[in-house]
Amino acid sequence: MGGSTAFANKYIIMEYKIKSRIWIEADGHILLGEGRISLLKAIEETGSLTKAAKSLKMSYKKAWSLIDAVNSRAKEAVIQTSIGGKRGGGTALTPYGKSLVETFDTINEKCWEFLDEQISKSNL
Amino acid sequence: MGGSTAFANKYIIMEYKIKSRIWIEADGHILLGEGRISLLKAIEETGSLTKAAKSLKMSYKKAWSLIDAVNSRAKEAVIQTSIGGKRGGGTALTPYGKSLVETFDTINEKCWEFLDEQISKSNL
Repeated sequence: MGGSTAFANKYIIMEYKIKSRIWIEADGHILLGEGRISLLKAIEETGSLTKAAKSLKMSYKKAWSLIDAVNSRAKEAVIQTSIGGKRGGGTALTPYGKSLVETFDTINEKCWEFLDEQISKSNL
Repeated sequence: MGGSTAFANKYIIMEYKIKSRIWIEADGHILLGEGRISLLKAIEETGSLTKAAKSLKMSYKKAWSLIDAVNSRAKEAVIQTSIGGKRGGGTALTPYGKSLVETFDTINEKCWEFLDEQISKSNL
């Protein structure tokens, strides 16, 4: 068994892999990239900007400025905050914010598939 | 005329643009990205690694190490050097090197088109 594995390894053909990074711009400025998407997801999971920032080992100030940039450049509000109430208020994504995250993730995955197809069709 | 332009501007709808950066990896290391592609193109244009490095305001040492990384990780040699002869020798891309550059550029452009389609189909 060990011998057979070693034998197989000798004949592994190196393959190229193609990688990508995407981001969305609005008015020539970054609206959303992987970092901001991670932050939005963390806000959705934790219900709090403070907790989201902590979970990503990011300062609150940095997280706030990223969210402010997203909110000010997006076509609609991405984040909503509520104050008080039984659960003590918090921060959440708006429906538009959720659709931004979902669309980004979907396009990102489709892009990876597209690129995998392209590289496997090439003669490299 | 001026008034009509101003009127039109008020109704411009902000559009999101999607951007991407791609790179190719071999054995878990970067083989080719935009920087290395620029260097390969400059070598092809100038016929010299020294001139190519200068044209990109890069040190010769840096250019050499990038090319060495590409040559050592690619499936076939990417760069060839010749010494002497009427034109005094020089550096050029191998046919395989040329096909790497062409394929990278083609996939990159197709990726941009693909992403443009994806973002315009989305409801963002």
